[in-house]
Amino acid sequence: MEAVIDKECSALGGLFQTVIADMKSSYPIWEDFISKAGKLQSQLRATAVAVAVFLDAFQKVADLATNSRGGTRDIGSALTRMCMRHRSIEAKLKQFSMGFLECLINPLQEQVEDWKRGVNTLDKDHAKEYKRARQEIKKKSSDTLKLQKKAKKGRDIQPQLNSAMQDVSDKYILLEETEKQALRKALIEERQRFCCFVAMLRPVVDEEISMLGEVTHLQAISDDLKALTSDPHKLPPASEQVIMDLKGSDYGWSYQTPPSSPSHTISRKSSMC
Amino acid sequence: MEAVIDKECSALGGLFQTVIADMKSSYPIWEDFISKAGKLQSQLRATAVAVAVFLDAFQKVADLATNSRGGTRDIGSALTRMCMRHRSIEAKLKQFSMGFLECLINPLQEQVEDWKRGVNTLDKDHAKEYKRARQEIKKKSSDTLKLQKKAKKGRDIQPQLNSAMQDVSDKYILLEETEKQALRKALIEERQRFCCFVAMLRPVVDEEISMLGEVTHLQAISDDLKALTSDPHKLPPASEQVIMDLKGSDYGWSYQTPPSSPSHTISRKSSMC
Repeated sequence: MEAVIDKECSALGGLFQTVIADMKSSYPIWEDFISKAGKLQSQLRATAVAVAVFLDAFQKVADLATNSRGGTRDIGSALTRMCMRHRSIEAKLKQFSMGFLECLINPLQEQVEDWKRGVNTLDKDHAKEYKRARQEIKKKSSDTLKLQKKAKKGRDIQPQLNSAMQDVSDKYILLEETEKQALRKALIEERQRFCCFVAMLRPVVDEEISMLGEVTHLQAISDDLKALTSDPHKLPPASEQVIMDLKGSDYGWSYQTPPSSPSHTISRKSSMC
Repeated sequence: MEAVIDKECSALGGLFQTVIADMKSSYPIWEDFISKAGKLQSQLRATAVAVAVFLDAFQKVADLATNSRGGTRDIGSALTRMCMRHRSIEAKLKQFSMGFLECLINPLQEQVEDWKRGVNTLDKDHAKEYKRARQEIKKKSSDTLKLQKKAKKGRDIQPQLNSAMQDVSDKYILLEETEKQALRKALIEERQRFCCFVAMLRPVVDEEISMLGEVTHLQAISDDLKALTSDPHKLPPASEQVIMDLKGSDYGWSYQTPPSSPSHTISRKSSMC
């Protein structure tokens, strides 16, 4: 019976060691994750800047359409809405990129250091405890053997022997329970790592979802733009109105004979619109 | 009457010139847009690469959880799904970035060159036509004046005079119509630019919407991860099973006395799982 429980304790201790070894050998993977996440985060930050600069240029194109002499204001207004919606996406991208750094990358880096300390302590404590318990069992077992020898020599020490054998058996049961608890602790330590990782990851994914959620609004603007530009060869009523109005107006415009040298010709009231 | 129509024609010509001048002065804005879009596109391409590299590292973390000794397989499987969903987002990001270049940036660059040629032709043709029509009117007007002088001297040329005056009037009406058509053409040219721009922009926005549409799937995975990691201090049944199974197993594991020098301890069957 002791042989069985002895093997069981050794198996529990062996699995404990494997779980600990798994955790110890995982650091390069975590550190690689942190490094690649850091590189992606820099890229996202740079992208957010490029988006901001691009949207400034986009808004100028939209303004060009809005400030035209009547023919493209409707398009300009839709382009401005498209631009503004992308400003929201840009803001969310910035938040996402910051969250990536502050909620995941930085805390995870600190956490990995904690993990290293934690698992070393677990391992050391377990080895010490296991050794101590084993030595105690060894001592008790040799005590039992001595008593058994004495008993064979005919001395009446059965009660002592029974108690010593019970003692060994109890110590084994205690060791087995201790090993189970240690294994449970190691498995929980391992699981906690991933729980901790997920707890850091989820707010970042939430930011990502929120950023991409802005996109639902893009479809409506894209549809508007499609409708507005469906017939590029036809002037909208606003433009025809400009031509009509000109007839009855005080003639703010007048034709300027172009200079012989090629240069831009601006009518004298070109800034009035 | 001639004075009024003369002013109207001049106003139409003046507005035509302003619209043309607006278009000519808009090139820096379009070129700035193309340049900033190009920079954003490079950023997006670099980001797609960083995402791919990051996801490789992420998948290794997921594998770590999946290949553990029973305690975190459920989390590993959800992390793998999270990773795969992001692979789809990565693929869409690549498509989006390519579409940005091929559907918008490159064609717009070519288009701007076409626009330059087109508007110069419009301007030149209009100036030539306007000048020709004006000279013709001038000549007809001076003919009419001569006839009026002769008529004052008592010569009976009323039919000739009437016909000449009608001629001047017709020429003015023709010029006004021509100017209206030219103005309409210029306004359509301006509008077509934005219609063309929108036609190039929309497929890119569609790619963007499709990329961000992948995100709807992230929420469910994030919710799964939350549920799986809600109690980090409790082992899942799978892990308890590992401990139970060990008891009745052939003891694949055995405790290895740690060496005195600190190093990683791997149980002899650590690779069997």
